[in-house]
Amino acid sequence: MMQLYIVNKNYSTWSMRPWLVLQAFKLPFEEVMIPFAADPYTGEFKRRIQAVHDNAKVPVLQDGDLVIWDSLAICEYLAEQFPNHALWPQDRAQRAWARSICAEMHSSFSHLRSLCSMNIQADFSAHGAMLWQQHAELRAEVARIERIWASREQATQFLCGEFSIADAFFAPVVTRFKTFQLPVSVETQQYMDLVLQHPAMKKWVEAALQEATVVGMEQYRR
Amino acid sequence: MMQLYIVNKNYSTWSMRPWLVLQAFKLPFEEVMIPFAADPYTGEFKRRIQAVHDNAKVPVLQDGDLVIWDSLAICEYLAEQFPNHALWPQDRAQRAWARSICAEMHSSFSHLRSLCSMNIQADFSAHGAMLWQQHAELRAEVARIERIWASREQATQFLCGEFSIADAFFAPVVTRFKTFQLPVSVETQQYMDLVLQHPAMKKWVEAALQEATVVGMEQYRR
Ligand SMILES: N[C@@H](CCC(=O)N[C@@H](CS)C(=O)NCC(=O)O)C(=O)O
Ligand SMILES: N[C@@H](CCC(=O)N[C@@H](CS)C(=O)NCC(=O)O)C(=O)O
Repeated sequence: MMQLYIVNKNYSTWSMRPWLVLQAFKLPFEEVMIPFAADPYTGEFKRRIQAVHDNAKVPVLQDGDLVIWDSLAICEYLAEQFPNHALWPQDRAQRAWARSICAEMHSSFSHLRSLCSMNIQADFSAHGAMLWQQHAELRAEVARIERIWASREQATQFLCGEFSIADAFFAPVVTRFKTFQLPVSVETQQYMDLVLQHPAMKKWVEAALQEATVVGMEQYRR
Repeated sequence: MMQLYIVNKNYSTWSMRPWLVLQAFKLPFEEVMIPFAADPYTGEFKRRIQAVHDNAKVPVLQDGDLVIWDSLAICEYLAEQFPNHALWPQDRAQRAWARSICAEMHSSFSHLRSLCSMNIQADFSAHGAMLWQQHAELRAEVARIERIWASREQATQFLCGEFSIADAFFAPVVTRFKTFQLPVSVETQQYMDLVLQHPAMKKWVEAALQEATVVGMEQYRR
């Protein structure tokens, strides 16, 4: 059985993506949680994940002898291994679009990432309003994401119609928009609701809400 | 015929990757250069690339009606379109490894990116020595890249034996290590030489050396 190493669901944007894909498509996997240590200075998380893989970050997927790291590479691997499930959309043009937006997500949006860390338990609406005022780059990144979502074919559906890797890649953005209450359009809010209602997403969020809060999260890159 | 939109070869790390793949595998394409304006304040580059695609960055691949952006998505698209060429390695385990290191490259190494911008024409050895002294994160990122390269199967070959997308993804790192003369191991230098001797790479570097220098490059994210 495949094993997916992840870290606290409340904080880990990168872990969330392949987990959602595995869960949404009901692929057989075992979750291995390496929690952020209550005291980050002990380096316990780092030691444990380094034993799994030299890059010392989660997520990591272990499939027999194979160790695959990085959320995007894991999703590509799963798409190859389970060709009967449409992890990527089946249509060639849609697939090229889905990969474009996921690769853009993977390499960009640094202001959103660093200013609005994921924390599913929190209500950062006041802080969000201040950030929105002060950071033009944040506003530009959010606007770009809104345009990406708005450019999907069917406004009432997931990014490629059915739930796919593309939605999993943007799911952490959905939680950030929510926690920081960023002032997005009605259409954006509709897409967010669709993602938040997906059974796999609900399962992740419920588990995140039950986790203990970690002090000193600034020590970790998330 | 496919068209690849790129920007000045001397500066553009992201454009370099799909260009090298297209060139190395002799795939039919037309290069469309949108140069950084001599004066970045005119916004000419931005206007021209925005007409091609809303994300307003290069590289962009146009294939008939399809517009694919982001270097990684373009490479995945090409790998699908040309299954008879081993753009990704043919072996399943090697392919999973190749995708892991490319996705890691795509989303990480922010210190190397921001401290050591690509500039093929330059000799930044003195500056490189200073950066090396001052930035522990830079040293850690370089060490990680050296470990990635060292973990390939055959020490005298490309990352997956034959030249593949993986080498194209690390090619801009090779030029940065060279320009800034970062103190890497003999084994790392051997891999760098191998990449620098590849015909596609030589062609890119020769063209870069003939380009006019752009003043005010800090205005652009590269
Ligand atoms: N590009 C990687 C990023 C992985 C990443 O940064 N993971 C975080 C947790 S979400 C981590 O392990 N941080 C611990 C650290 O950097 O020490 C991916 O997509 O998997
Ligand atoms: N993640 C993108 C990054 C593209 C990117 O940042 N391109 C640079 C040139 S190498 C660019 O167009 N910069 C212009 C700008 O940001 O205005 C990719 O891999 O294609």
